Amino acid sequence: MSEFAAVDVIRAKRDGHTLSDAQIDWVVDAYTKGVVADEQMSALAMAILLRGMTPAEIARWTAAMIASGERLDLSAVTRPTVDKHSTGGVGDKITLPLTPLVAACGAAVPQLSGRGLGHTGGTLDKLESIPGWRAGLSNDEFVRQLQDVGAVICAAGDGLAPADRKLYALRDVTGTVEAIPLIASSIMSKKIAEGTGALVLDVKVGTGAFMKDVDMARELARTMVELGKAHQVRTVALLTDMNTPLGLAIGNAVEVEESLEVLAGGGPADVVELTLALAREMLAAAGLDADPEKVLQSGAAMDSWKAMIRAQGGDPDAPLPTARETEVLRATTAGVVESIDALEVGLAAWRLGAGRARKEDPVSFGAGIMLKVRPGDTVAVGDPLLELRTDEGSRISAALAGADGAVRISQNAPAPTPLLIDRIA
Amino acid sequence: MSEFAAVDVIRAKRDGHTLSDAQIDWVVDAYTKGVVADEQMSALAMAILLRGMTPAEIARWTAAMIASGERLDLSAVTRPTVDKHSTGGVGDKITLPLTPLVAACGAAVPQLSGRGLGHTGGTLDKLESIPGWRAGLSNDEFVRQLQDVGAVICAAGDGLAPADRKLYALRDVTGTVEAIPLIASSIMSKKIAEGTGALVLDVKVGTGAFMKDVDMARELARTMVELGKAHQVRTVALLTDMNTPLGLAIGNAVEVEESLEVLAGGGPADVVELTLALAREMLAAAGLDADPEKVLQSGAAMDSWKAMIRAQGGDPDAPLPTARETEVLRATTAGVVESIDALEVGLAAWRLGAGRARKEDPVSFGAGIMLKVRPGDTVAVGDPLLELRTDEGSRISAALAGADGAVRISQNAPAPTPLLIDRIA
Repeated sequence: MSEFAAVDVIRAKRDGHTLSDAQIDWVVDAYTKGVVADEQMSALAMAILLRGMTPAEIARWTAAMIASGERLDLSAVTRPTVDKHSTGGVGDKITLPLTPLVAACGAAVPQLSGRGLGHTGGTLDKLESIPGWRAGLSNDEFVRQLQDVGAVICAAGDGLAPADRKLYALRDVTGTVEAIPLIASSIMSKKIAEGTGALVLDVKVGTGAFMKDVDMARELARTMVELGKAHQVRTVALLTDMNTPLGLAIGNAVEVEESLEVLAGGGPADVVELTLALAREMLAAAGLDADPEKVLQSGAAMDSWKAMIRAQGGDPDAPLPTARETEVLRATTAGVVESIDALEVGLAAWRLGAGRARKEDPVSFGAGIMLKVRPGDTVAVGDPLLELRTDEGSRISAALAGADGAVRISQNAPAPTPLLIDRIA
Repeated sequence: MSEFAAVDVIRAKRDGHTLSDAQIDWVVDAYTKGVVADEQMSALAMAILLRGMTPAEIARWTAAMIASGERLDLSAVTRPTVDKHSTGGVGDKITLPLTPLVAACGAAVPQLSGRGLGHTGGTLDKLESIPGWRAGLSNDEFVRQLQDVGAVICAAGDGLAPADRKLYALRDVTGTVEAIPLIASSIMSKKIAEGTGALVLDVKVGTGAFMKDVDMARELARTMVELGKAHQVRTVALLTDMNTPLGLAIGNAVEVEESLEVLAGGGPADVVELTLALAREMLAAAGLDADPEKVLQSGAAMDSWKAMIRAQGGDPDAPLPTARETEVLRATTAGVVESIDALEVGLAAWRLGAGRARKEDPVSFGAGIMLKVRPGDTVAVGDPLLELRTDEGSRISAALAGADGAVRISQNAPAPTPLLIDRIA
């Protein structure tokens, strides 16, 4: 591997040049080892954000991040492997019903997940509200559960793409998160290193999503689909709406409960629709010919869920934590619910204790928000709009102030907004 | 002073917004105190480099850097104060004859200088080749010498613009040196904090300069002139050629010797021309009506030089260090010298030991290059072109390899290139 001065690599990207394969390999490796300093990588990240990268550069950067750590070997798993990744939204508990459902259809789902930071929740935080359930598995436990149960949701080990872990923490404090080459390579390096054979991406667009703009979301989706294909991972992306929270429950335990409703054959229509749409994509990508709707109604997905929770030490029948205090926000005007702002609801749930301000903070499992209405519902004065739940009553006033404008009531029914916006394959 | 999250300031500039006065004040102060981390400031510097700053932002940034430290009070100096700053070039020893010359004409010249890094030499390194001379003065010594002798060349104290000192070191390793707002505010914050009443800028353009492009140099000059005026410093800039080294001597002791030739009324024509041009601008800016050419010929400038050197512990009559080994590069074709590349000559002198690779390195006082020809000279095969001087013979081969192409010989006389390109006031 050649040696480059970090400054030369930074200047090249700063001046709009394409980085060579050797430059990319060197800078990612040297940053992982601490030879390239944080202040050099943050300057490079800003140059990448403002100057962009070619598809070939993004592919090489992703490969270098994969090469910074181990790559899991799933060859012992006899079922076809397929994973899903969501770019994150409010009320997005889809991984919870989807993973056991797709496993019940015959696939193995190696779902390495994260924790929440800011207004979007984390899958691991939600599952940890189940008594006894643990997020950490060894690589051996991970592969064995994948083979035996077919469904695993757990924390990514420290060995996968350590360059990405270090870079992500840096981007978070240097205003360099919003770079499509860096977002795409961050997501895809972990998914490729995890060893999945196929991948379905749920790229969220809207106020409650990371991508507010549909063109940006489409570019991110295309970039990730190309990266997956270049690494022999069959990859498909759905662009889905995140202007409105998904379902009625936003929080940790409340989202597990709503997921259980879906696994029991009920649940909110939008959660069911998105779960089935993603399941169909995953099964097609895995080459399986099952009907997920039938499997959901048969109860097999719920059996798969219970096996998955038990395999990780959890008690699927134990009661879930509930919040100590509740407060109801009521309509002050009559009319039709025009919109429910996902960002505002997510921030209010975060303020109630469902999320964390810093990585080290604990989350409250019972805290969160229950929507009492959906867009298009008719309300009278005094009707409940939102129910706020928290363990600390002192959090209610700040959350209420934010949530107050989240539900817009007008005199006209809103235009229907489709949940599924686009499909990129 | 308001509190801002560093990330919000970085994102604002990244997205092309104008930073508010309060944001600039906060981020410069917080960086100086270590509240804003190096990796955050380097990302901001890259965003500034690529997004630019408005004149009002540059003015505020400069003011914040001045406010980060002390501001010298020169009110005890009864003569008019005027300083000169060069953006740096090869063979640029002009400060050495210019400072005592302008002092001999009646002004006080508070010349705070730096050391060389890379291919351009540093004024302090050159003067330190004089036995006994010391660069460090207390503020009191500085003001007293300014009043008594009129001429001071010394190192800037740690108290002046500490934000700039910290930021400059960061920019050097993060590829963010070449941002006009940051260059201009770096130079001008130190000059304004030093307390001079007037300032003449020598903005170099060409292969051996920081600015290769005349339009960029003109923009930098205009930005600095405006900054000076905004802080009640009468400021003028000359754009001068740096495609060819200045004079015949490039190094430390050899440049002192050439400066002494000028002070004695001789010296290379280009060095004399630029010294006089800058002296005239400085005297006009200081409101003095002296003729520097007459003062130079009178010997008064040489007297001022000796007084200045003695005041800082130096012996102006002591012999200067010489290099242990010399090597002559000779012409292999006959013709006319078309050009002598300043960058190549500067790099070769640096390789011979005249400059330093890292801040901590010592320099060799005797090392350097003597030009034996100037552009337009006719040469025969075997005529000397350059004389290389070094204390370590092992350095010669690398320096020769670089210097070999520096002198271009052709069959036609080159078009004359003016030394003075433009004047901005």
